[in-house]
Amino acid sequence: MEDFFDVLKLKDFISILKQMPVLESEEVGLENSGWRNLAKDIVSDEDLPGTNRSSMDGYAVISRDTFGAGEANPAYLEVISNVSIQESPQVKLDQGLCAGIVTGATLPPGADSVVMVEHVHDMGQGTIEVRKPVAPWENVMLRGEDIGKGEIALSTGQIITPRRMGILAALGMNRLEVFKKPNVAIMSTGDEIVDISENPAPGYIRDVNTYTLGQMVRDKGCAADISGIIPDNEKALENAFNKALEKNDIVLVTGGSSVGVRDFTIKAMSRIKNLEVLAHGLAISPGKPTIFARRGKQCIWGLPGQVTSAQVVMLVLVIPFLGHLQGENDPFTTKEEFQLRARLSRNLASRYGRADYVRVRLEKSGDRIIAVPVPGKSGLLKTLLDAHGLIMIPENSEGLSKDDQVLVRLF
Amino acid sequence: MEDFFDVLKLKDFISILKQMPVLESEEVGLENSGWRNLAKDIVSDEDLPGTNRSSMDGYAVISRDTFGAGEANPAYLEVISNVSIQESPQVKLDQGLCAGIVTGATLPPGADSVVMVEHVHDMGQGTIEVRKPVAPWENVMLRGEDIGKGEIALSTGQIITPRRMGILAALGMNRLEVFKKPNVAIMSTGDEIVDISENPAPGYIRDVNTYTLGQMVRDKGCAADISGIIPDNEKALENAFNKALEKNDIVLVTGGSSVGVRDFTIKAMSRIKNLEVLAHGLAISPGKPTIFARRGKQCIWGLPGQVTSAQVVMLVLVIPFLGHLQGENDPFTTKEEFQLRARLSRNLASRYGRADYVRVRLEKSGDRIIAVPVPGKSGLLKTLLDAHGLIMIPENSEGLSKDDQVLVRLF
Repeated sequence: MEDFFDVLKLKDFISILKQMPVLESEEVGLENSGWRNLAKDIVSDEDLPGTNRSSMDGYAVISRDTFGAGEANPAYLEVISNVSIQESPQVKLDQGLCAGIVTGATLPPGADSVVMVEHVHDMGQGTIEVRKPVAPWENVMLRGEDIGKGEIALSTGQIITPRRMGILAALGMNRLEVFKKPNVAIMSTGDEIVDISENPAPGYIRDVNTYTLGQMVRDKGCAADISGIIPDNEKALENAFNKALEKNDIVLVTGGSSVGVRDFTIKAMSRIKNLEVLAHGLAISPGKPTIFARRGKQCIWGLPGQVTSAQVVMLVLVIPFLGHLQGENDPFTTKEEFQLRARLSRNLASRYGRADYVRVRLEKSGDRIIAVPVPGKSGLLKTLLDAHGLIMIPENSEGLSKDDQVLVRLF
Repeated sequence: MEDFFDVLKLKDFISILKQMPVLESEEVGLENSGWRNLAKDIVSDEDLPGTNRSSMDGYAVISRDTFGAGEANPAYLEVISNVSIQESPQVKLDQGLCAGIVTGATLPPGADSVVMVEHVHDMGQGTIEVRKPVAPWENVMLRGEDIGKGEIALSTGQIITPRRMGILAALGMNRLEVFKKPNVAIMSTGDEIVDISENPAPGYIRDVNTYTLGQMVRDKGCAADISGIIPDNEKALENAFNKALEKNDIVLVTGGSSVGVRDFTIKAMSRIKNLEVLAHGLAISPGKPTIFARRGKQCIWGLPGQVTSAQVVMLVLVIPFLGHLQGENDPFTTKEEFQLRARLSRNLASRYGRADYVRVRLEKSGDRIIAVPVPGKSGLLKTLLDAHGLIMIPENSEGLSKDDQVLVRLF
C-alpha cells in the first residue's frame, strides 16, 4: 500500500472551512426562528419597558415620603387610586399621597418607587402605614431598562435561543431575517455495508453512519437528504455525488476516504466538474482520512467509515461547519467557561504533531469529577456508548498525566 | 390582599409530578426516533460484530508466529490470500502463513491477530517481513464484543441519542417502540398583554411567554399548540382550558397564578369538571405562584406571568416533567458530573426554607471559572439574556459565600 497522504493541522483545516461563504438569508416568522442565526442586527425602535413599571405588588410612592420609616415610626400615606395593570395613570402623586399598584403596572406621574405590600399595613379609610423606607426607583423596572430606543438588542450571527426569542417578541419582531440552513446529503459507501432492514451475511455489516450522522445533522437544524448506500466504485460514487449536488449544499460520504485499493472517494471526486479537493488528511486521531472538496458554494466531505472516527470528525468539524454556513459566530470555538472540567484518571500518551481525541466517562470521586478514558477500537460502537464525551490532547503535546485537568466536550 | 397560599417544597412538588402516568407507546421508524425514549428493552438477537473483524489495515496472522520479531530479527510469513472487506474467508491459516486484510474484514480461520501494515515490509513474491510482534487478538474486534446475542443493548427509558441510534441501526431495528410525546397547549393571560404584531399603548406589553415557552416545549420534542392570549376573566379562561384539553395532554398558562384580585386561573380551574388542584405554591424563588392541577392523564400548569419566573419553573419543573411523561429515566435529577462547576464571585443571601435560583454569568478568571450573579428584577428580560445559567441555593441554606463552589445549570 502507498504512503499516507499529507495531513493538515486542525487549525489549517478550519481556516479552509471558514473561507466557505455563509448562506443567504431568508425571512421567517418568529415562531419558526428557533435556533436559527440572525442575519441582521436587531435595533429596537422603542423603549422596553415602554413605561416605568412596578416589579412588585404594593404601593407606588414618592420615596422621600418613606425615608426614616420603620416599625416604630411608620410613615402614613393617603391612597388616591389603585392602578390597574394596563392603565396609563394620569393623576400626579403629590407629597403624602400614594397609589395601590400591581406587578407590571405603570407608575403614576410623580411616583419614583414601590413599597412592597408586605411592608405596609392598611389602616382602612384610604390610609396606609409604611413600615420600611424605599430608595428612589426601588422595585421599579425603568423605562428602557431592558433595551433603549435605538439600541442594538441582538446582533447578526447570534443564535435565537428561547430567551432571545422572548426579546424579539417583546420588540414586536414577528418576522425576521435569518440565514438559510444548508441541505445535507448523507451517503455511505462500502461493499460490506447493507441496509438496516437486511440480515447481513458473515462479513457484511449494517449501515450505521447514515443514522448517526443524519440525526446529528437534523439536531443542527438542517435537512438530511438520506441518499443510501453507494457501491464502492468510482462511477457509482460520481453519479451519486452529481445527483446529491443537484439539490444539496453539502454532501457527506462516509467510507472510502483512506488511501487504499478500495478507496474510490477521491477518484470519484476528481471526476466532478469544478470540484476542488482542498484537504485530504487531517492531523487528528481518530479522523485522519478526512477529505474536504469545494465547488463554489457547495462542498463534499469524505469522512472515515469507522463509526467512531466519523463521529469525532462530525463533532469537531462538520457540525461547527454547519453553524458557520448558517452564520453562527465563531462556531469552531467553545469557550472554556462552558466546558466541563475533570481530572484525568490515568496517564495518556499521544503522538506529537497530532490532536488526539479520547473518549472518556465522567465519574464522581469524592468531591472531584474524574475523566476515565474508555478503551476500545475505533470500529466498535460500544466505546462511544459507554463514553460521555471527548477530551483532546493537543498537537504540541506528547500526552497527559494522571490528575491533569482536562476539558470535556460532552456528546 | 389576602395572605399567600401554602407553598410546597420542591421535592414534594416533584413527588406529585412523578405520580402522573407515563404516556402510551407507539411504533416509529428508526430515522424518526431521535431523542425519543425507548418503551422496551432492546435485546440483541445476534452477536455484534458478527465475526472477528480487523480493526486495522495489515495482515491477519497467528500471533505466536510473530513472538520475538523485531527490526533486527523479523519474522517471515507467506501471504496466502488477500481478504476483501465483505468476504467470509474459508481457508485456514497454518503456521507461517498470513493473509492481507483491510479494516473491517473478517479474519480467516486460524488467525488470531492483525499486524498493522506499518510494521510490515513486503519482500515481494508473496513473502512479508514482520518487524513487531502482536499479542493474541491484537487489532481485532471480537465477535460479540460490542453486544452479545441475548444481551440488553439499550433499556426502557433511555433517550435515543445519535450514538444510540447507531447501535439500533447496527442491530437492524428499523422500527421500534417509543413513548408518545405529549401535546402541549400554551396560553398567556393578562389584560395588559397584546399580540406581538400590535403596537402596545402605554401600560400594555407584548406577549413574550408564548414564544419562549413554545420554543422550550418544541426543544423537548413536543408539539406546542399556541392558544394565544386569553382575557383575564374566569369564564374566558374556563372556555380556553376546556378547548385546549380537548386535544392536548398538558395546558401551560402563564399569568394569573398569584393570589390577588386579578388572579382568575385558580378560579377558572375550579370550574373544570374533574380537575383537581394538587399544588398551589412552590417554595422556590422566583416561581412561587405555580399551580399544578390534574384530570386523569391530563394536567394544567399555572405559571407565573413574569418572564423570568416562568422560565425558571420551566427549566426546573416543566421540561423535566415533559421528559417524565415521555418515559425518561429520572428527568428531575442532573448528575453532578454533568454540571458545570464554578466559584461564586460574591456572597449571596437566601431565605431559609426556600430554594433560590440565581441567574449567573460565567467568566474565566485566571485558571478559575467564576459565577457572577446577574442582578435585576424578575420582570426584566435582559437579566436572562445576560446570564448563562442558574445556580440554586438550597432550601436548608441561608445563603452562599464568595468562593463557594456552585453547580451551574446552563440555559
